[in-house]
Amino acid sequence: MVDKEMPSAHPVPVDDLTPLAQRAGARRCGGAPEGVAFVDGGGVTSARGFAAAGVHAGFRKNPERFDLALVAADEPCACAGTFTQNVFCAAPVTVSREHLDGVSYGIARAVVVNSGIANAATGERGLEAAREMARIAADAVGCPEQEVMVASTGVIGEHLPLDPFRTGVPAALEKLSREGGHDAARAIMTTDTHPKEAAATFSGDGVGYDGCTFTVGGMAKGSGMIMPNMATMISVITTDAPLSADALHTALVEAVNGSFNRVTVDSDTSTNDTCLMFASGAAAPAGAAPFAVGTPAYEAFLATLKAVCVNLARQMASDGEGATRLVTVNVTGAASAADADAAARTVANSPLVKTAVTGHDANWGRIAAAIGRSGAAFRQQDAAIDIMGLPVCRGGLTVPFDEDEALRRFEQDEIVLDIDLGAGDAAATMWTCDFSHDYITINGDYRT
Amino acid sequence: MVDKEMPSAHPVPVDDLTPLAQRAGARRCGGAPEGVAFVDGGGVTSARGFAAAGVHAGFRKNPERFDLALVAADEPCACAGTFTQNVFCAAPVTVSREHLDGVSYGIARAVVVNSGIANAATGERGLEAAREMARIAADAVGCPEQEVMVASTGVIGEHLPLDPFRTGVPAALEKLSREGGHDAARAIMTTDTHPKEAAATFSGDGVGYDGCTFTVGGMAKGSGMIMPNMATMISVITTDAPLSADALHTALVEAVNGSFNRVTVDSDTSTNDTCLMFASGAAAPAGAAPFAVGTPAYEAFLATLKAVCVNLARQMASDGEGATRLVTVNVTGAASAADADAAARTVANSPLVKTAVTGHDANWGRIAAAIGRSGAAFRQQDAAIDIMGLPVCRGGLTVPFDEDEALRRFEQDEIVLDIDLGAGDAAATMWTCDFSHDYITINGDYRT
Repeated sequence: MVDKEMPSAHPVPVDDLTPLAQRAGARRCGGAPEGVAFVDGGGVTSARGFAAAGVHAGFRKNPERFDLALVAADEPCACAGTFTQNVFCAAPVTVSREHLDGVSYGIARAVVVNSGIANAATGERGLEAAREMARIAADAVGCPEQEVMVASTGVIGEHLPLDPFRTGVPAALEKLSREGGHDAARAIMTTDTHPKEAAATFSGDGVGYDGCTFTVGGMAKGSGMIMPNMATMISVITTDAPLSADALHTALVEAVNGSFNRVTVDSDTSTNDTCLMFASGAAAPAGAAPFAVGTPAYEAFLATLKAVCVNLARQMASDGEGATRLVTVNVTGAASAADADAAARTVANSPLVKTAVTGHDANWGRIAAAIGRSGAAFRQQDAAIDIMGLPVCRGGLTVPFDEDEALRRFEQDEIVLDIDLGAGDAAATMWTCDFSHDYITINGDYRT
Repeated sequence: MVDKEMPSAHPVPVDDLTPLAQRAGARRCGGAPEGVAFVDGGGVTSARGFAAAGVHAGFRKNPERFDLALVAADEPCACAGTFTQNVFCAAPVTVSREHLDGVSYGIARAVVVNSGIANAATGERGLEAAREMARIAADAVGCPEQEVMVASTGVIGEHLPLDPFRTGVPAALEKLSREGGHDAARAIMTTDTHPKEAAATFSGDGVGYDGCTFTVGGMAKGSGMIMPNMATMISVITTDAPLSADALHTALVEAVNGSFNRVTVDSDTSTNDTCLMFASGAAAPAGAAPFAVGTPAYEAFLATLKAVCVNLARQMASDGEGATRLVTVNVTGAASAADADAAARTVANSPLVKTAVTGHDANWGRIAAAIGRSGAAFRQQDAAIDIMGLPVCRGGLTVPFDEDEALRRFEQDEIVLDIDLGAGDAAATMWTCDFSHDYITINGDYRT
C-alpha cells in the first residue's frame, strides 16, 4: 500500500513536455570540451617532467597493498594547493600549507602520501610526524623539506609511525618512473574500489605555443566517505604547461570549485582533504613565457584542467561507499548561482532521493520537497522536473509518465535528475551516488 | 582491517575526565521540569473542553485502518498554528493559514485531518478540495468554515477525494468523545509504528489561579520521513488553560522551536508540516483572566507545553523509519546559540554518525569531522566528546576508553552524544535516530 509522500499520476494540462535537457540554455556537464582530448590510461605521470611510485611501506597490515605514494618532479616547479576548511584539520594539511606559504612560496619538488593513518586529531606530536615525513622524502629526493608536500588518509586519532617512511620512501625512490602513476594511484586508495586517474591534452597551436602539446593528468582517492561532508579526498594533478604558482593557484581554485567541491555538500571539508597541483613547463620550449591568466593559452589549459577534475570527481561520486549509481543533479532556471547551488546540493544530499534512486522509484515528490526546503527562491507552479529525461513534473504538478519506461531508464549507470526552477537563468550541477544497503553495511558494521 | 577515518586509543595527557553531562552548566533536556506532571495514557482529549474521534473514511484501502481524525472543542476557542515553510507547501497548509489569519483570526472550533493523501502539488483543484474538506467538517460541527483547521498527510501529487469526508466526518461526529483521542492519534499515522500521545498537568496554585489544575495534551504523527528534511509532521495540541490567541501563538512558537524543530534539520519544512494548538480555558473559573505572556501562570503553562512537545518530538525521533535507537545530541560550550544549533544539527544529520550508532561504534572521529565542518567557531584543541557518558575525546585528542563498556552502553534505547566546543556558554540539543538497513528497505523499495 502506498503509504507516504509519493507522486501519483493524474493528468494536468501542460503545454511544454520538452525534456529539460533539450531546452535552450540548458547546461550540461561532464563531457570533454572542444579541443580537449582525453588520454587512454593516463594519470599523474602523463605530463612530462614527473615520475611516481607506489609501494607497501607498512601502514597497512596487508603486504600486498600499497600504502605509500611518491610523486616527484624532475626539477623544482610551480605548485598550488587547496585544502580542507574543517576545524579538525589534520597535521599534514597544516604542514603542506606551511610549506606552500613559507619561504619556498609556490615552489615544490615532490609530494608524499600515505594511506591507512590520517594523522588527524594527533596534536603537536602529529605535526612533528608530518614534518619528519616531509624531511625523509626531501632527503631522498634531494631538495629542501619545504619543497615537499604531504598528505595522509585513514584512521583519525592514531599516531603516524615514522619507520614505514624510513624504509618506504627509499623503496619508492628506487621504483620512481614515468609509468609509476598507476601504482601511486593504487597506493592512496582507502575504501575506493578502484584507482582513479585521468589525463587530457590540449594543443598550443594558435594560442601562442605553436607545435606544443600540453598534458594535464592526475590521480584521486576519495569516495570512501562520499556521503555529505566527509569525502576524505586527496588528489595530485600535474601538468607540463608553463605556469607561475599564482596562475596555477587561480586555475586550481576554479577547477576544484567546479568539480571536487560539487561532489555532494561539504566534500571540501573533511579533516584531510587535499588537492595539490604541480606545473613543470616541460612541454614548452626552454625560456617560453608562462601562461598568463586570461590569455588564450591559459583558457585552453583551464578547460583541460576542468575536464580532468570533473572526470576524477565523477569517478569519486560513482565509487561512493555502497554506490550502485552515479547521480547527476542539474538545476537550471535559478534566480542566482547561490540558489542553483543550494537546490542542487539539497537534492544531492537527500537520503530520500538517494534511496529512491536505489529503488528505481521515479518519486519526484521527494525531489520537490528537497528543492522546496533548499532556500532557493521560486514558485512551485513554475517548477519542472525530469528523471532520466522523462518529464515527471511541469508547473509544479504531476505529469503522467510510462512507469515501465522509467524503470528501464533507471537501469543506466548514471541517473540524471534535471530540475528547472523557472525563476531565472542560473544553473548548477552536483554529482552524488545512491544510498544502498551496502552503505549501511560498510559504515554500520560493528567496530569489533 | 581498519581502513578509514576512525579513532584509535592512544594515551594523551588529560586533566579532566569528568563526563560532560556532569560538568557545571551542562544543559540536559527531556525530563519533566519541576511542577509538571505527565498524565498516564493522556493525549489530545486530556484537557477539558475537547472531544475527538478517529474513523476509517476510505482514503486508505485497508478498512481496519483509521484515516480520518476529528478533534472538536465544545465551544469556539483560541487557536494558534505553525506551518511548513517549504515552497512546495500543501493545499491544507494554505487553507489553514487563511482561516487562522482571516476573519475569525485566532478563533477555531475543530480540526479535521486525513492520512493517505497529502493534497500536495495539486494546484487550484487541491485548494478547493481543502476548502470543501473544511466546509464538510464545519457543517457537521455547526460552525463557520473559517473555524475549521485542516491537515493532510500521505501521497504527494494525487487529488484528494471528497466522498470519504462526506461519509467519514458524520461517522466521526457520531463517535466524538473525551475518550476518542487515542483513535484520533491512530488515524493520523502514516509509516509511524505506533500512535504518539502525551499530556501533562500543572497547578494554578500560587500563580493566580488557586485550586485549578490545568492540562496540556496532544497527539503527533511524524517520523515517517524523519531523515533530514522531510519529517511530515502533524501535531494537534489542546489545553484547558485560558489564553488569548496571541499568547497561545507566542507560547506555541517557542515550544515548537525547542521540540519539533529540533528533530533533525529542516523537519519544519516538509510539504505538509502543521502544528495546531487550541485553548479552551475550561479549567479556569468562568470569567477568569487569560494568562498574559510573562506572568507566572503563563510560565507554568509554557513549561508544561514544552515538556509535552519535547515528549512528542522524542517519540517522533525514536520512531524514525527503520530506527533502532533514539539519538540525543547535546552541544555545550558554543560561542553562540547559532553555533550550538549548527554543530548539533550537523552531527544529528551525519549519515556517518547515524550508521556508527547502528553499528555500536564509538567512532568519535565522525563526530569531530561533523562539528569541524558545521561552521561553528571553536579550536580543535578545546573540543571534548562523550559517547553515552564515556569520555572519548578531550582537548581534541583521543582518550583511551573501555571498548567493551562502550558496546554495553550502546545497548540502551537512547544514545546520548555530548559535545563541548570549549568556545563559550551556548548550548543546543537535537534528537534524531540511527540509520539502519530497514531505512533503505523502507525508502528504497521498488515502487512497483
